[in-house]
Amino acid sequence: MSEPAATHRAPPRARFITLEGGEGAGKSTQARRLAAALAAAGVPVLRTREPGGAPGAEAIRALLLGGGTGWDPVAEAMLHFAARREHLTRTIRPALDAGMWVVCDRFADSTLAYQGFGQGLPRAVFDALAALTLDGLAPDLTLVLDLPPETGMARARARAEAATRYERLGLEFHARIRAGFRAIAEAEPARCVLVDAARPVDAVADDLRALVRARLGAPLPP
Amino acid sequence: MSEPAATHRAPPRARFITLEGGEGAGKSTQARRLAAALAAAGVPVLRTREPGGAPGAEAIRALLLGGGTGWDPVAEAMLHFAARREHLTRTIRPALDAGMWVVCDRFADSTLAYQGFGQGLPRAVFDALAALTLDGLAPDLTLVLDLPPETGMARARARAEAATRYERLGLEFHARIRAGFRAIAEAEPARCVLVDAARPVDAVADDLRALVRARLGAPLPP
Repeated sequence: MSEPAATHRAPPRARFITLEGGEGAGKSTQARRLAAALAAAGVPVLRTREPGGAPGAEAIRALLLGGGTGWDPVAEAMLHFAARREHLTRTIRPALDAGMWVVCDRFADSTLAYQGFGQGLPRAVFDALAALTLDGLAPDLTLVLDLPPETGMARARARAEAATRYERLGLEFHARIRAGFRAIAEAEPARCVLVDAARPVDAVADDLRALVRARLGAPLPP
Repeated sequence: MSEPAATHRAPPRARFITLEGGEGAGKSTQARRLAAALAAAGVPVLRTREPGGAPGAEAIRALLLGGGTGWDPVAEAMLHFAARREHLTRTIRPALDAGMWVVCDRFADSTLAYQGFGQGLPRAVFDALAALTLDGLAPDLTLVLDLPPETGMARARARAEAATRYERLGLEFHARIRAGFRAIAEAEPARCVLVDAARPVDAVADDLRALVRARLGAPLPP
């Protein structure tokens, strides 16, 4: 009797990959490309994004991005983490537990960059909310798409969709966001990689696949 | 020259009064009666309620009470505290700073009773969120309207309005809520008074006015 199990390598364990960066950095495009490459390589993959990714989280997203209310900074951070908790509980953890890789467009680093570095939310408030929300879960790999805010804002403006409330804020704000993401990547080199996102989409996509292959052992072709 | 200032007593400083209790305890009616009595006595007063009491908080209230989503307990607590933060920042603190007394139908004790005692939210999560939200503000007086859950549920069912999601939960749940409110009142006797709310509305209203007069020096007639 043959032993078919021995002829198959065990699939690498499910991994949690986040893409981070400012407006116009190409996160959504690159998340789509990366998830498609993983799926084409036979890796079960769930692509999702924040804020949102679960029914309750999408309802909170509508509150946050609607722009009708200027939120108190602590309240706004709590809304982001409430949405994140729903997303983790309903979507991300069940997918990881089922062996799926998760590719997520924005995660907790975006709250730290936008609310913390961008809008002055105290780091202690961010840390306390993150501890309450995440129960120790952290991304296995965070791809930080970095580009000058001028470039990112020009790209964002060129898109057909309406400007979000963040896109309406000025260049100085977006420079703080960029500095925040760079500081996050520098502080956690085991988790984060800074990627030059000012280059053409294909070049960035090639880099991301190579990073996911090298860092997480994903069976992606070069 | 006369000294008119000496002939007037300084008005007592603005105070923050909360009413707490389970479904059908009469909080809204008693808040209305108490606020009317204060206003009739010349005390500037703002009556408000949670969740809600500010535009962003009302939007969060609609999410919480809509009943469409079963929230993760930590997410639900964060939504309550995000609404509370908006309510404090936009409504309660400005009113107190302007010298108004604030009479609030439900506050943080309701989150501890319903989410903590009722639904098992860890006390440490409640405490952490309360610390992030309240910046040290606590009610000057909390009137805890206490009655058997059977009585409260019968009253709540008799009301014309649709049942809230909490009203649809069973008696065992509401017994835990009652025990929670009683434990809160017992733990903080300097702030909280337990009031027998199974009595007629007028008798409860008389007691509340007497308590506000005795504890806070409000110029209310007997």
